[in-house]
Amino acid sequence: MALIVKKFGGSSVANAKRVFNVANTIIGDYKKGNDVVVVVSAQGDTTDDLIEKAKEINPDGPSKRELDMLLSAGEQMSIALLAMAIEKLGCPVISLLGWQAGFSTDSKHGIARIKKVDPERIKNEIAKRNIVIVAGFQGLNKYDDITTLGRGGSDTSAVAIAATMKADVCQIYTDVDGVYTADPRKVPDAKKLDAITYDEMLELATLGAQVLNNRSVEMAKKYNVELEVLSSLETKPGTIVKETVKMEKTLIRGVAKDTNVATVSVVGLEDTPGVAFKIFNKLAQKRINVDIILQSVGRDGTKDITFSVPKDDGKTAVESLEAMKDSLNFHKIALDESVAKVSIVGAGMESHPGVASKMFEALYDANINLRMISTSEIKISVLIDAECADRAVKAVHDKLID
Amino acid sequence: MALIVKKFGGSSVANAKRVFNVANTIIGDYKKGNDVVVVVSAQGDTTDDLIEKAKEINPDGPSKRELDMLLSAGEQMSIALLAMAIEKLGCPVISLLGWQAGFSTDSKHGIARIKKVDPERIKNEIAKRNIVIVAGFQGLNKYDDITTLGRGGSDTSAVAIAATMKADVCQIYTDVDGVYTADPRKVPDAKKLDAITYDEMLELATLGAQVLNNRSVEMAKKYNVELEVLSSLETKPGTIVKETVKMEKTLIRGVAKDTNVATVSVVGLEDTPGVAFKIFNKLAQKRINVDIILQSVGRDGTKDITFSVPKDDGKTAVESLEAMKDSLNFHKIALDESVAKVSIVGAGMESHPGVASKMFEALYDANINLRMISTSEIKISVLIDAECADRAVKAVHDKLID
Repeated sequence: MALIVKKFGGSSVANAKRVFNVANTIIGDYKKGNDVVVVVSAQGDTTDDLIEKAKEINPDGPSKRELDMLLSAGEQMSIALLAMAIEKLGCPVISLLGWQAGFSTDSKHGIARIKKVDPERIKNEIAKRNIVIVAGFQGLNKYDDITTLGRGGSDTSAVAIAATMKADVCQIYTDVDGVYTADPRKVPDAKKLDAITYDEMLELATLGAQVLNNRSVEMAKKYNVELEVLSSLETKPGTIVKETVKMEKTLIRGVAKDTNVATVSVVGLEDTPGVAFKIFNKLAQKRINVDIILQSVGRDGTKDITFSVPKDDGKTAVESLEAMKDSLNFHKIALDESVAKVSIVGAGMESHPGVASKMFEALYDANINLRMISTSEIKISVLIDAECADRAVKAVHDKLID
Repeated sequence: MALIVKKFGGSSVANAKRVFNVANTIIGDYKKGNDVVVVVSAQGDTTDDLIEKAKEINPDGPSKRELDMLLSAGEQMSIALLAMAIEKLGCPVISLLGWQAGFSTDSKHGIARIKKVDPERIKNEIAKRNIVIVAGFQGLNKYDDITTLGRGGSDTSAVAIAATMKADVCQIYTDVDGVYTADPRKVPDAKKLDAITYDEMLELATLGAQVLNNRSVEMAKKYNVELEVLSSLETKPGTIVKETVKMEKTLIRGVAKDTNVATVSVVGLEDTPGVAFKIFNKLAQKRINVDIILQSVGRDGTKDITFSVPKDDGKTAVESLEAMKDSLNFHKIALDESVAKVSIVGAGMESHPGVASKMFEALYDANINLRMISTSEIKISVLIDAECADRAVKAVHDKLID
């Protein structure tokens, strides 16, 4: 007998047939004698449809408080429907909204952080041998107003319950059957990983692998919650995410591509102290995350600073810096949105310096030019032309993962 | 400065344009310096669509607890959208769910009764000069589970708030502009009433005028809340509903038609004591409301009992009595669904015995046969062939209301 927390995303419950599919998966574990708590997102396109309705009323964007009131109805509908399916299949079940399940958050509507989960109600329902279905993505602030946790919030809800209740495992069901060494749609040789560490998963999530939400992996790491990423469509083991994982013969856990990147180049800056501070302080004020930074000194006593940002923030970054032209003194600013980042991730990398050169060799053999390079203890990223990205992933994967 | 409670039904907020129409009506009263609390139903067909989704999952009918969880999301979406429209128009506003607005109910999911409204949060929001938008139709039971009040529940929510907060008026916005002496679509001469008493309104509601929900009128009467029924599409005074209304020259407040009627005839019963008790006790157990009863004695020492019930209950009534054939001993049972009830209502009627004969004369002149007759202090009802109903309403209206 174990306590299992399961999370199903919106596409897993998009229609009645899928709702029953999920219900059967849940009942399978319940009937083995396990206690089961399920976190579920809004069905299919519900959230997007509701955002569309809000935009129709106020194209400038409604208040985040009222948007949370609207959006949280999406999960309310999906938990009720999933509970009805489980009822129909003959098992005892109860659905709970975020606040009923004890989720307290701060008051940052739309991007609220969970402050506490009071599991009393969930525990009482489990004690009655009910399957408990919890609305993901939502909580209540200290003013008794409904908040939402932002994109990927349901993953975080599930991990928070698993952490609070010391669940044996937190299973995140997705439309893929685990974490792969590369995107299997692009790299036919990509291999499914049996296990991966939290840190590796964090790098892969950041790098655009889009399997798990970052906040949920951070929380799982903090509270040592064992995660499993698995398919909601097939019954087979997925990928376990935990603190330490025995290294297999390959040092590399995965190759990831991120096309949500742009580079901004500030050309012809005075080569005086404080220039970099001014630039990155301004971007921090605008809440723009800068990733890779490259500084080069020109022959005429000026210098250039190039950095990468998420593509959506590119224009804002350029405008913010243009507005500083008087105090900053530069020749010009260029925005390039036709770039992509390719990265390799692996916890064993730091003790094996040959990995980087193998990666560069693979890219050289494929005739792909490197614009920028960034390394950390467990990853190496390169910025290249966007059009070469898929080819680069394949070349690196072929070279480093067999 | 007054405290005004307004209630808008689902069709009044069915799309973005109508939502803004309602928002402007609200803001009009707010800008005059009034405090405004608004109760709103789910948009347009939302509730029916959600019921459809539930039936798709469980055609036998899901548990009422989960159905309440599902349906209450409908009002949650409409309050958020209405609040967004008011924001967009530049006024301070906040939406509140039933439980946030302090609605405690009993635990009869789907048909819950309001036990108490704790108006603290509403009062706090009004003190901040917020327009308060409350989700109608919903509350919370003692287990912290969401309940719904059943059809017409939003009217009841509005009256409950008005009663608790001693509002100056409770305005119920509908798709008609008031209460008429007859259905204006069928009787072109029908007149709009300036005012009507609670008791008259109750009889008219029961009789199928379908302007106001009965429970809300009963509650308004109990707490002496002045109601106004008015149009959400036009700006003009509606009909006031209150305790006493000065009689105008006509004694009759309205003529109503109800086609949701069937008659059941039990023919050839033994003429012994207890027969009527057995029949109506059985129907009471099945929660079937019996309206008009007619008993006639035949020549052969048997008797017939005929009674009217809501059309939906006709088959169940017949089946329940057929099952008692052994103990009841009758010749046969006949169900007739092709009947209608036409009624006149007016508080001044009891002191003017001539009203009934005038009604019968009008029907006789129109060559309409009366099957059953029922009278109370403030109404007279006749059961006739359904196909004559509209003609009967017009004939009676022409004769009694000028």
